[in-house]
Amino acid sequence: MLLLHLSDVDEASWATKLRQALGGYRVVRRGDDFDPREVRYMFVWKPKADAFDGITGLKAILSLGAGVDALLKHPALPAAPIVRFVDSDLSQRMSDYVVAHVTMHHRLYTRFRADQMARRWSQLYPPAASESTVGIMGMGVLGQDAVRRLLPLGFDLRSWSRTLKQIEGVTGFVGAAAFDDFLAGTDILVNLLPLTPETAGILNMETFRKLRRDRLAGGPVIVNAARGGHQRETDIVAALQDGTLGAASLDVFETEPLPQDSPLWDIENCYITPHIAAISSETSGVAYFSQIIRDHEAGAPLINVVDRARGY
Amino acid sequence: MLLLHLSDVDEASWATKLRQALGGYRVVRRGDDFDPREVRYMFVWKPKADAFDGITGLKAILSLGAGVDALLKHPALPAAPIVRFVDSDLSQRMSDYVVAHVTMHHRLYTRFRADQMARRWSQLYPPAASESTVGIMGMGVLGQDAVRRLLPLGFDLRSWSRTLKQIEGVTGFVGAAAFDDFLAGTDILVNLLPLTPETAGILNMETFRKLRRDRLAGGPVIVNAARGGHQRETDIVAALQDGTLGAASLDVFETEPLPQDSPLWDIENCYITPHIAAISSETSGVAYFSQIIRDHEAGAPLINVVDRARGY
Repeated sequence: MLLLHLSDVDEASWATKLRQALGGYRVVRRGDDFDPREVRYMFVWKPKADAFDGITGLKAILSLGAGVDALLKHPALPAAPIVRFVDSDLSQRMSDYVVAHVTMHHRLYTRFRADQMARRWSQLYPPAASESTVGIMGMGVLGQDAVRRLLPLGFDLRSWSRTLKQIEGVTGFVGAAAFDDFLAGTDILVNLLPLTPETAGILNMETFRKLRRDRLAGGPVIVNAARGGHQRETDIVAALQDGTLGAASLDVFETEPLPQDSPLWDIENCYITPHIAAISSETSGVAYFSQIIRDHEAGAPLINVVDRARGY
Repeated sequence: MLLLHLSDVDEASWATKLRQALGGYRVVRRGDDFDPREVRYMFVWKPKADAFDGITGLKAILSLGAGVDALLKHPALPAAPIVRFVDSDLSQRMSDYVVAHVTMHHRLYTRFRADQMARRWSQLYPPAASESTVGIMGMGVLGQDAVRRLLPLGFDLRSWSRTLKQIEGVTGFVGAAAFDDFLAGTDILVNLLPLTPETAGILNMETFRKLRRDRLAGGPVIVNAARGGHQRETDIVAALQDGTLGAASLDVFETEPLPQDSPLWDIENCYITPHIAAISSETSGVAYFSQIIRDHEAGAPLINVVDRARGY
């Protein structure tokens, strides 16, 4: 039996589609009449505190989100394996966001918009993509997809990750010891890391000060498409105001929705979107998770299982 | 002998570099002491009215610009073949501009910026790149380079050109008869056409009304990186204000610099840059034109010669 426990999304629609995809396999929702001891799979998104009460026979927890940082903090999380959502459609949408914001800043959008507002015709030629370095933090599924989109645009690319990922056309930097070198050659810093105790708050003033300053007119830029927990927003405000950063594109925030009194809203060179960089599509999710359940019931091992010690 | 006649660029710097590249071949500038009848090549950019006076023995005119629309209108243009500048560096920079503005609009920049100004947290998921169609007008060197950059991003691509160019991954529409069909499936219209009598004013209200309206939130978008003569600015103002267009990115204008009293400056969803999409680099230009002169002196035919009847 599969139990759905999805908050903030259309759970009824997911249930209908999963029932269709799984044929005879029983799919239930909270409030339905079922014995919790018979639940073998739980499909969760933002599970409530009592979500796992009475669930004693789980084979797997299926996470709608690609990031499982919040799920791993659930105080009553069962020991069953957690399967992350890995989805080419979600990767494509995330890369759409990354490419749009990287190229916008590479083309000095903030400067030209200010000129337009002042009716100022002031020619300045942005560097060619090949003269600019994009540094990507995180070389998982999303980071690798971003590489695949940014490389044909001609950017110089470097990556920073916990373990070495050899990717053609990308200069790889690995681990804490290489972080400063990675930053020193980066003009546009893209964050696609998982949120773990090691990466929390990594987008802070100390990091910003180490970015390359002499290449991109206006200063280095950050693009955060991962988690609000990665960023110190007081540092971002200070860095945008004192010129340590030329601009910031933020899709995620320490508190979401971003509070009305956040100073970020009013900063000209801060580009805010309301956590919409990418969404897990129902069509992809139903295909992905129904296949995992069918395969696992047929005896195959689970795929894309979270390493709890690592945190992702 | 090579005569330089370059306005609005650093002619002295070009002369120095061309002298180095061409070794013993004589390179002169206006004001130097030389016999105009001995000039065999002229390297021009925005030539003055008297530029060609007394020049009677030309083998070729070398144009610094990729577009030769203005040059072809010169009242005293000699009959010698005109060689256009074709340059991968210039193509890269032009594509940088095109990709930045296409992706910005695809990600609904105008909407999210308005939300930010109003401190509004309003989630809306932009379509995936694969759900959006970019229609490129002009499939010359620049159009083909734009295709090479946009295809790996996942966009659905279509092209419109005077003659058929078979390009993998692009649906080709050819000639006036196919123009309406081309527009009817286009969400983001990119202009990279040469400016000719046939293409002048092509970005007008009639064209805008034929673009696809139901896909991109806010309405279809135009990106003009070619020539101001392609656009009817009174129509663009009207179309941005009445919602026929969702946004416009314009790097070129009917009159440049854009006049102080143009209404375009103040339109929120009009994104103005001061003709800086791409620049011909001295390094590339010197390598390109010095090679052409050396090859031609050695008996090779000229390359990238303008078809005057066609206009490009």
